[in-house]
Order: sequence, then C-alpha cells, then structure tokens
Amino acid sequence: MDGQNQYFISTKRIETLVDGIFAIAMTLLVLSIKLPDNSGLWTDSMVWGILWGQATNLFIYALSFYILATLWINHHRVFDQLKIADHGFWWITVLWLLLIALVPFSTYLMGDFGNTTPAALFFQANMFLIGIVSLLNRWYVIENKLADKIYKPETVKQIYLINLVFPVSALIGMSIAFISPPWSPIVYLFSPLIIIYLQRQL
Amino acid sequence: MDGQNQYFISTKRIETLVDGIFAIAMTLLVLSIKLPDNSGLWTDSMVWGILWGQATNLFIYALSFYILATLWINHHRVFDQLKIADHGFWWITVLWLLLIALVPFSTYLMGDFGNTTPAALFFQANMFLIGIVSLLNRWYVIENKLADKIYKPETVKQIYLINLVFPVSALIGMSIAFISPPWSPIVYLFSPLIIIYLQRQL
Amino acid sequence: MDGQNQYFISTKRIETLVDGIFAIAMTLLVLSIKLPDNSGLWTDSMVWGILWGQATNLFIYALSFYILATLWINHHRVFDQLKIADHGFWWITVLWLLLIALVPFSTYLMGDFGNTTPAALFFQANMFLIGIVSLLNRWYVIENKLADKIYKPETVKQIYLINLVFPVSALIGMSIAFISPPWSPIVYLFSPLIIIYLQRQL
Amino acid sequence: MDGQNQYFISTKRIETLVDGIFAIAMTLLVLSIKLPDNSGLWTDSMVWGILWGQATNLFIYALSFYILATLWINHHRVFDQLKIADHGFWWITVLWLLLIALVPFSTYLMGDFGNTTPAALFFQANMFLIGIVSLLNRWYVIENKLADKIYKPETVKQIYLINLVFPVSALIGMSIAFISPPWSPIVYLFSPLIIIYLQRQL
Repeated sequence: MDGQNQYFISTKRIETLVDGIFAIAMTLLVLSIKLPDNSGLWTDSMVWGILWGQATNLFIYALSFYILATLWINHHRVFDQLKIADHGFWWITVLWLLLIALVPFSTYLMGDFGNTTPAALFFQANMFLIGIVSLLNRWYVIENKLADKIYKPETVKQIYLINLVFPVSALIGMSIAFISPPWSPIVYLFSPLIIIYLQRQL
Repeated sequence: MDGQNQYFISTKRIETLVDGIFAIAMTLLVLSIKLPDNSGLWTDSMVWGILWGQATNLFIYALSFYILATLWINHHRVFDQLKIADHGFWWITVLWLLLIALVPFSTYLMGDFGNTTPAALFFQANMFLIGIVSLLNRWYVIENKLADKIYKPETVKQIYLINLVFPVSALIGMSIAFISPPWSPIVYLFSPLIIIYLQRQL
Repeated sequence: MDGQNQYFISTKRIETLVDGIFAIAMTLLVLSIKLPDNSGLWTDSMVWGILWGQATNLFIYALSFYILATLWINHHRVFDQLKIADHGFWWITVLWLLLIALVPFSTYLMGDFGNTTPAALFFQANMFLIGIVSLLNRWYVIENKLADKIYKPETVKQIYLINLVFPVSALIGMSIAFISPPWSPIVYLFSPLIIIYLQRQL
Repeated sequence: MDGQNQYFISTKRIETLVDGIFAIAMTLLVLSIKLPDNSGLWTDSMVWGILWGQATNLFIYALSFYILATLWINHHRVFDQLKIADHGFWWITVLWLLLIALVPFSTYLMGDFGNTTPAALFFQANMFLIGIVSLLNRWYVIENKLADKIYKPETVKQIYLINLVFPVSALIGMSIAFISPPWSPIVYLFSPLIIIYLQRQL
C-alpha cells in the first residue's frame, strides 16, 4: 500500500474469481430449460410434450455449456503463463467476466425466442464481444510483457489467429441469423475444433 | 504456448471448476422445493398443507443431494491419483459436468412430475449417462496412463465394476419407471452402499 | 486405489466443497426478498409500500445470513484441527451440507409464512437438525481421533457444550413458535454470542 | 481449541468464502434482465421491443457488476496485507458480505423500479452501508495491527480517503435520487476512477 507492488494483483485470486463465475454461469445455464407449474393433473403424453417442447432449450443449454468450456480452457492457457497482473489486465478481465456472466441470459433468450432474428443477433453479439475482449486480453498480456516467457513473432501471430476464431464465428453466425435464426449457433460446433487444431500447431 | 506442455492442463484448476459446479448444482437442488405466492391470508393448516404437498420434493431433493455427493466422492478418487490432464480428459470431464449441471433440472422434473413415466425416464437417463461418462473417464485415464500409479489387472477390473453400479442402477430404475414412476429413484438408496462396499475390496 | 489410503479423503477438497455450498446458500438467501412484476406504472408511495412489505423478509435474510456465518466459523475450527477425513466423516458432512443447503428454503418459508406455526417449526427443525449433526460430527472426530491433537476431558466437555447451543436454541425457538411464530427466530440473535463466550473459555 | 490460537481464523478460508460470495453475487446480477414467458408467437419486432425494454436493466447490470468488481479489487488489497484475522475482523467481514449479497436485490429493484425515488434510495443506501463497513474494516485492521506492515500516518490518511469515496458517492447519489432517480447510479461511473487515482498516489 505504500509505494511498492501496489499496482500488482495476485493472479491466484483473480483465478478463483474467474473459476467461480464460470462454474456459476455454466450451472445457471440449466435454468434455460423450463417447466410449467405442476398444478393440475398431468398425463404421460402431456409430460412427453413438455420435454419435447424443451428439446431446443436442451440443445442450446448443451451448446452454451460447450462454448463456456472452450472459453475457460482457452483462458486457462493465458493464466498458466501469466507472471503478474496489473490494473489494466484486471479491468479487461472484469469486462470479459461481465460478458461471460451475460451468457446465461443470452442462452435463455436463444432458448425461448431463438426463432427470431433479434434473439439470435443478441446471442451472437455476446459471443463476438467475448471474442474481441479475449483478443484484447491477449494483446495486452503480450504488449505489456506480463507472461513469463517471450513469444516468438510466429507464436504471437498464431495466438492472435486462435483468438480470432470466436469473433469470426460470431460474424458468420450473425449472417446466418438473418436467414435462419435458430441455426445460427451451429457455428460454435466447429469453432472449438478449429481452436484445438490451431493450438496443436503452436 | 510454444511447443512444450501446451497439450496439458493443470489438474488443480479443473478441480476448482468441478468443485464449483458440484457446490452450485447441489445448492440449486433446493429450488425444487417450491412455495406458493404469499398473497392472501394463510392459516396454520393451509401452511401444513403446503409443506405436506412438498414432502415428495423434499425427499427427491435429499436423494439427488446424496447422489451428487456419491458422484463427487467417487470423482475425488480419480483426481487424487491423476498425474496429468490432457485435452481428451478435459472434454470428457466437460461432458460429465454438463450432465451433472443437468441434475437440478432432472430433480425439478422428478419433484413436480415424478408420477409420470417420462419424468422418471428422463431422471434415470440423466443418471445413466453420468455413469457411462464416468466409466469412459476412468477408461481414458487408465488407457492413457494419466494416473500416477500403474494398476494391477484385478484393480482395473474392480474399478470398472464400481463404475458400472450407476449405469446398472439407472437401467433398473428405468424398468421401474414403467411400472411405478415415483418409486424408480429408490434404486439410488442402495447404489452408494454397493460402491462403498466394492471400494473397500480394492 | 489399490489397498492403501483408499479410505481417506483429502480434507482440502471437502473444505472447498463446504465453502462453495456456504457461499451459494448465503447468497441465495437474498432471493427471499421478492419484488412484484414491474408491469404497470409505479408511484413512489407504491414502491415504498413494496419495500416496507419486505421488511420482515429483509430481517429474516439478515438473520439467516448471520446464522450461516456462525455455523461456518464454528465448522472452520473443526477443519483447522482435522488431520484426516474418512468415509464416516464425509457422510456426516454430506448430511450436514444437505441441511445447510436447505436453509435458503427455510428462510423463504419463514419470510413469506413466518406468522404461521408450521413455517416457524420447519425453520427451527432445520436449525435443530443442523445442530445435532454438528454435534455428531464433533463426537465422530473426537471418538475416531481424526484431529491433530488429543483433547483434555474438560476441553471435550466444553466442545460438546458449545455444540449444544444450537439444538437448545432451536428447542426454545420451537416453543416460541407455538405462542408467537414470527418472534421465534429471535433466539438466534443470542446463540452466536453464547458460542463465542464459551469458545473464549476453552 | 485448547487455549492457543483459538482466537484467530485462517485468512485463506475467509478469502475463499469472500471470493465465492462475490462470484455468485456478480453472476446472479444477470437475473435482473428479464424475459417474458415464451407462450404465443413472437415476431422479430416484438422481440426487439423486449430487448429494448431491458436496456435499462442491461445498463444497471453492467454498472453493478463494475461496482462489485471495484469493491472486490479494493478488498483484495486489505487481504493481501493481512497477517492474521480475529473474531472482530470476521464479524465485520460477515456484515460486509451480507451487504454485498444484497446487491443483486438492489440491482433488481433499480432495474425494475429505477424511476422511483425509494428504489434509487435503497440502492444508494446499500452502497453507502457497504462503504461505511469497508471503512470500519480498514480502521479495525489498522487499529488492531492485523496487517503485516506498519503504516505511516500519511498512508493511513490516504487509505481512509480512498474508503470515503464510496460513502460520499452514495450521499451524492441519494441527493440525485430525489431529483432524477434513474440517473442516480451514474455517480459510480466515476468513483472507481477516483479510487484508482488515489491508490496511485499511495
């Protein structure tokens, strides 16, 4: 507090906060699958109807879970090599977490109104912004030498390429949202595979 | 990021995420016990009626809590002996967590529509898939030698046997679901005991 | 997994799970304070009315938060001196956590139906059971010598005395619940003070 | 438990609880953005209408997230220099967490009834109390020499000044609440900047 080190933040505690927010966001996703009030009598076929009616919500739940898992594992890499965190890094992370914590809402929106363009655009915009802030985060760490190693120029290029997969996917998803909104999240079935493929080449 | 170790993931952080998701899923279970709006006047006997009407939900809450605790303690063993985690292990764990985070939903469904076959089948299918993915997880760890010890063939057999208790219980539960849906979760009163018994023999 | 140590569980990870469940239960308590739908126009005096109508819920929120904090700090002591955890300890802890995770429900019930005897009795029964399981937990740790020190007989007596404060408070609370249900949780304003006083004498 | 150290609490575990409660409170904020039931048919323009109607809630979500992040990072500093925690520190922290866990409620209230004075006053009162308890916390740590360094008188003054930013902002916010309730939270756009500026001078 008096002059030294005040500018730096323990990466361990940011990590705990990040993990907590991811765990909660991932678990809250399940609330996108909804049930009616259980007042009245329900027959088997009526309950089959409820479950069938929630099939899209179940699919979008699984997809968002998979997206958040991809983001977490990608972020894990950044932290693994992080030597130190400063206020700039912290505030970029806060912005990123704010967008991560918004994913359950986007998922509920997509689950319930996924056949409309605005819902699909909102979902994709959420992902696009997450991707952009991830990219910013990576750029900030490299620019300010916060990592514990110096990256070769090719590696830096590859890192940026990996972090472009999400924003580009979101842009493709946005285009699809105008034609067929419920199909637009399909792009994220492929983006994690591309990310893993690119990471292998590092 | 540049060539070495990139393929491996810190088991410590996966552990934190797993613990977070379990803690939240276990606590969210309580939302399966519901209360009506408190508008209007309520007499003592009306409130006794509400509580009595939630008796099944309270029971299914306790049972799901107990199931998740069993799954957690079983998973704890895997991690205890895990030397290293790779991408295969991570994605199997993600699939497993996706199914774990679905348990609150299955519990709400069972609590409210537990006297119908589809609700009971959904609940059992959730448990069946969790069991199968646990088994896959164990097989993957053994096959890829991610544990910090080499298992004797008898131990491997025993481990697989332990991880078959859940899928088999679920299959029995599914059969019961066709005859008497609300009684089908009863199978899980016994499966943890069988697991503990088998683990003692290891 | 093959013969040694299998019976013991890392206390560190149980700790993480306990902390997670407490953090979530404490935060979910806030959902006991409710707001109406914001459809329609609301004047200042109407919103003052809403807030005033939630005064009891706000009070019961604060009280339950304070109770959970007392339970957490008391539990923290057990873990601090815990050398090792076995299956018996684990399952007692699971039962305890199941009752802890039920506190948000008891709080919602007390907040909304707190002027009826059944609601107040349910709340007190929840606290009574938590107290009994805490006592059981303490007894188990002492009996099985899981702590890292040997307690003097006077200390053991004092520990049991401390852990009797909660069950006794609950019994007093239950008696009050028959006369004046909304005042019954008042007992918990004093029990943490008694616990702290008794701990000082250790 | 028998005489020594009993009065002290592991700062590591309090940290875990604090981080957990922050992570959950920050993620629960998102529930302030609401969606109608998806029964019936929804056109694109209707869904645009829903999203537009939630613009204020989205803004207040982001603002509260930013406020909690500021409080967390400020608190992080206290813990970073904390040598030891005693019961006084613990109970001040509990009071502080109780107010932190109330932020989601204040945010829902502000999101839905933000154009009324009582809602804005409640929100500001929550922030004011958080600020006062933070100040109390800081004073307690300094007074009881719980930190691992001795502060110079100027540093102490500066620390108190930093911790006055929040209460003063809240007082300004309260004044604005009487004139234009929905604009009152705007003060918190500036307070983190002032805090960062003052911390730089330390």
